[in-house]
Amino acid sequence: MSACNQLIIDRMQSPVQLIPQLAAHLIAAGGKRLRPMLTLSAARLCGYQGERHIGLAACVEFIHTATLLHDDVVDESELRRGQASANAIFGNKASVLVGDFLFARAFQLMVADGAPEVLRILSSAAATIVEGEVLQLVIQNDTASTEAQYLQVIEGKTAALFAAATRVGAVVADRPTQQAEALDSYGRNLGIAFQLIDDALDYSAVQEQLGKTVGDDFREGKITLPVLLAFARGGEEEKSFWRRVLEEREQSDADLTHALHLMRQHGVIEETVARARHYGDLALQSLAEFPDSAHRRALQGIVEFCIARVH
Amino acid sequence: MSACNQLIIDRMQSPVQLIPQLAAHLIAAGGKRLRPMLTLSAARLCGYQGERHIGLAACVEFIHTATLLHDDVVDESELRRGQASANAIFGNKASVLVGDFLFARAFQLMVADGAPEVLRILSSAAATIVEGEVLQLVIQNDTASTEAQYLQVIEGKTAALFAAATRVGAVVADRPTQQAEALDSYGRNLGIAFQLIDDALDYSAVQEQLGKTVGDDFREGKITLPVLLAFARGGEEEKSFWRRVLEEREQSDADLTHALHLMRQHGVIEETVARARHYGDLALQSLAEFPDSAHRRALQGIVEFCIARVH
Repeated sequence: MSACNQLIIDRMQSPVQLIPQLAAHLIAAGGKRLRPMLTLSAARLCGYQGERHIGLAACVEFIHTATLLHDDVVDESELRRGQASANAIFGNKASVLVGDFLFARAFQLMVADGAPEVLRILSSAAATIVEGEVLQLVIQNDTASTEAQYLQVIEGKTAALFAAATRVGAVVADRPTQQAEALDSYGRNLGIAFQLIDDALDYSAVQEQLGKTVGDDFREGKITLPVLLAFARGGEEEKSFWRRVLEEREQSDADLTHALHLMRQHGVIEETVARARHYGDLALQSLAEFPDSAHRRALQGIVEFCIARVH
Repeated sequence: MSACNQLIIDRMQSPVQLIPQLAAHLIAAGGKRLRPMLTLSAARLCGYQGERHIGLAACVEFIHTATLLHDDVVDESELRRGQASANAIFGNKASVLVGDFLFARAFQLMVADGAPEVLRILSSAAATIVEGEVLQLVIQNDTASTEAQYLQVIEGKTAALFAAATRVGAVVADRPTQQAEALDSYGRNLGIAFQLIDDALDYSAVQEQLGKTVGDDFREGKITLPVLLAFARGGEEEKSFWRRVLEEREQSDADLTHALHLMRQHGVIEETVARARHYGDLALQSLAEFPDSAHRRALQGIVEFCIARVH
């Protein structure tokens, strides 16, 4: 991981100073480095002893960071991980362009690896991520959206990169397709679980204790599972409320409090977490393909960690 | 070219309908298709008889279109090619994301080709383009910017993709490095000439006759050669004028008229066109590496076409 961090810092350099400045704000400032950790662990789980996984882990983190930068522009977010977001400090223009730069650097990193299968997996994932984000934009503010559409969004915007991150671990280790698919399934289900928890956290007091804002999704009128469940379980009066705040975006300060109250009443956060648990279990089952080892236990631990964030 | 157009339309499809809708607005609506034409012509000039150049030409057009979409967001443009820009119709958010999608599709197209040298050239070009655009953002509104910085901007944002577009023509044809470098030089110098003419056109009456707006760069405070020359050739009073309108962006309706007057007085449009002519000549000289042929004449004609736009 420290070799990967070093590579990330090396590859975000540019003669144009604004690029490393802005990239450092996001990348060097941290985050969990969850996705590169997945690539590194998956490769080791497959018995890989070389160093190609380091470049691919950095590539995965660059794709992720590029999408974060563009997400914050799209969502008009002021905060990211409890700090001022890059677009709030450097402006939307710089965030769009530096996101593009990180995308391009990600592609250079996969080209440096050069294996056709790796290139195919990671470049397809990049396209799928964006399709998920566009669909999210399309269904935003529409309470008539379906759970199937929501799942399609999170499978695209989140799970596709998790799946690619773990799958390439099997590819660099030259393991049979069955193991590549097991790791793909692990990553994909973990990604869905991760996003479900993220969406639950946005309406959870735990988030507030961590110094993060609650209700960002609410204010944007983002359609997530907690909202879809609360809408489905509410009577006509409640449905009108959700339409007013999410579709017409007429929100007073008291509306978020009321939304949280409705969610508690209908048990939607518990239900969202239960679904995350289900996908987490599917991720764990995918690992049955591999014998017990420290690396398998690490990947199992990541599932537990992702779900435990809500407690 | 018709095979390339078909591929462009095929590859902009997605189950998420907003993507082809928005992409069609820019891609299908046209533009000159100058960059894919360069790839097709360069490959044929090198005697290439296969079909790989079609996918690479589409890839080049996708990279170009992705950067156009993001440019319009960054520049807050209302118009593109005389029509409402995609961001004006679909919103900035959709433009950012569909730009990302086209970027990802471009990478999938180069991965489908798979040749390591092609991947290296095109992925490096993508990074260089963005570096040029970030530098443009950095020097924007700064009349103390130098001609060297301006050249660095246009070499990045425009010439790098022209150079890559032509260079890959030699690579698919498996021609020696000397010919790849000649085509790189052709594309790079053509790209510089093209951008110089574009920047001259932004202050030119010809632009107005074509139904396009004059003064977009002026309103944005963009630092282009006409402005740098007018600033350098003006006395203190004129320098104050340029600082007020470009740096502080205090502009009245009469200011653009005054700017155009100063430019005429100092002959800066003629000077910009003369420099474009110089780079155009360098592009033509690079073609000396190849014997006369219909394809060489086509590439020569493109140089003339690009420069003639100003008349």
